[in-house]
Amino acid sequence: MNLTVTLEAVHEARTRIKELIRRTPIMTSESLNRMASADIFFKCENLQRAGVFKARGAFNAVYSLSDAEAIRGVVTSSSGNQAAALAMAASSRGIPAYIAMPRGALESKISAVRRYGGNIVWVESQGAVPTSEEYEATAARVQIETGAHPVHPYNDPRTIAGQGTCALEIVDERPALDFLLAPVGGGGLLAGVSTVFKALSAATRVIGCEPEMADDAYRSFHAGRIVPQRNPRTVADGLRTSLGDLTFPIISRNVDDVVTVSEEAIVSAMRLVWERLKVVIEPSSAVPVAAVLEKKVPVAGKSVAIILSGGNVDLDHLPWRAKSP
Amino acid sequence: MNLTVTLEAVHEARTRIKELIRRTPIMTSESLNRMASADIFFKCENLQRAGVFKARGAFNAVYSLSDAEAIRGVVTSSSGNQAAALAMAASSRGIPAYIAMPRGALESKISAVRRYGGNIVWVESQGAVPTSEEYEATAARVQIETGAHPVHPYNDPRTIAGQGTCALEIVDERPALDFLLAPVGGGGLLAGVSTVFKALSAATRVIGCEPEMADDAYRSFHAGRIVPQRNPRTVADGLRTSLGDLTFPIISRNVDDVVTVSEEAIVSAMRLVWERLKVVIEPSSAVPVAAVLEKKVPVAGKSVAIILSGGNVDLDHLPWRAKSP
Repeated sequence: MNLTVTLEAVHEARTRIKELIRRTPIMTSESLNRMASADIFFKCENLQRAGVFKARGAFNAVYSLSDAEAIRGVVTSSSGNQAAALAMAASSRGIPAYIAMPRGALESKISAVRRYGGNIVWVESQGAVPTSEEYEATAARVQIETGAHPVHPYNDPRTIAGQGTCALEIVDERPALDFLLAPVGGGGLLAGVSTVFKALSAATRVIGCEPEMADDAYRSFHAGRIVPQRNPRTVADGLRTSLGDLTFPIISRNVDDVVTVSEEAIVSAMRLVWERLKVVIEPSSAVPVAAVLEKKVPVAGKSVAIILSGGNVDLDHLPWRAKSP
Repeated sequence: MNLTVTLEAVHEARTRIKELIRRTPIMTSESLNRMASADIFFKCENLQRAGVFKARGAFNAVYSLSDAEAIRGVVTSSSGNQAAALAMAASSRGIPAYIAMPRGALESKISAVRRYGGNIVWVESQGAVPTSEEYEATAARVQIETGAHPVHPYNDPRTIAGQGTCALEIVDERPALDFLLAPVGGGGLLAGVSTVFKALSAATRVIGCEPEMADDAYRSFHAGRIVPQRNPRTVADGLRTSLGDLTFPIISRNVDDVVTVSEEAIVSAMRLVWERLKVVIEPSSAVPVAAVLEKKVPVAGKSVAIILSGGNVDLDHLPWRAKSP
């Protein structure tokens, strides 16, 4: 497997997945522009299939496989969005998907995987929450037992190239952006989109946005080496993972800065997007919005694209206090 | 003032407001199509300016006025969406808007009006909730004191023609629909869109959808005369009003049926749209979705457009039980 990710690989991914994914809309809001004193373009990956940008990487990975590789299915480990996205992509190709999930996964995430026909394999864990080693061990066992092909949620060049296709759509529609802001967890999205921007729009400053409470990308970026995350406790459940050994060097090379935001700012940015844009975003998507509202990035007077990465929220548990009937 | 509403009036409205409103997207969801066994096209007026289709009618009314008529501003009475929409349209033309609102209006509705620079006039009321006579009396007093021009939220041909422009966009994109479903409160939207469909797409069955708990349009339609609503208690706060003497005859003439849905079905349809389409809709928008899910309309195997009328929800008060942090 080729471990570099090039613009060409992203173009190939676009061709491969074009009929499988949605070209998501870019939305604007006058009131949010006024609040930020900037022109903000929201790339709505929350309106992507399976409600998340990860559909791009999952389709690209699944459709990159030869028939011989694909026949025994694919396997990944995820408690969240990757689980549903890979199950959907596999079901589209008519192959099985095995998803290693923790027993504590949200009911909404579990039922999304089942809706797409995915096979859930529970991760055995010593603690309340499985470690990444325990996830990997379960996925490896499934791989041996079934012959399924592993697809990593972010540390995989096919996944990264797939996520990068989102940036091709942004550059097509908004060719002269001052800033591109994306959330960063494992770094698959940020690695993919920064590869595209550095190649096609080098003047755009690409900024990774992360919760203070899960700031491994911030620390890794500034230290120049991977500093793994310990005990992330952020509301942005999609961003609790650490950078991988494949995503980190790409991000180091292509990204202009990584900034962090508070939990409070994430929740109020999320609520504000629901209120003003009328779209449902998950907390991870609110992280770059919070970075603008907290003035962590000097966007005044500039044009800014923000990737709203996903919209998969447990509507029975909101991060703000809401009165029920 | 001409009291009929023709297709020509809707075309004129479209020309008048084209640069002022958004052409809203039509969205689809595979999982909702599967649930309904139909091809459903959601016209997202929740993504309209001010978060509601009423921007169309408000802009059309405000920009229909001559300079001499407009100079002293406009006045309306509303506790909800019309208030913000008219304030926005008036501010866009640079004229004052006076909005007669009840003292019990939601804080989110009040602040939306203030954000657009509207002048709030509190409705004096004997009871806890003002009667429509008390609303009208306040609006009439403001009209006398200020010389402002009255714009009725639904019982006004300019308002109705403006709302009809939504249907022109639907017919452009989906010319051979079997069904068009829209919520009905005062009937401005349903009167406008049914006028367009009967003229341009007569084979499409146009269905008004209403809460059982505010079923005046259902009873009026089937009785052949206006049966006013008493004490509506539905969660669909945008649909508590009764048909007007202008909207009722248009609806009688153009609409194929009016159906009703339960409160429970409205809340679960609303939640389902948030979850699957990832857009925020208010309870009123969920009413036609509920009509499909409750099989009140025989849509199986058919193509169906549903107007998602608005997205203005008080995010601190949800109609389902959600746990807070």
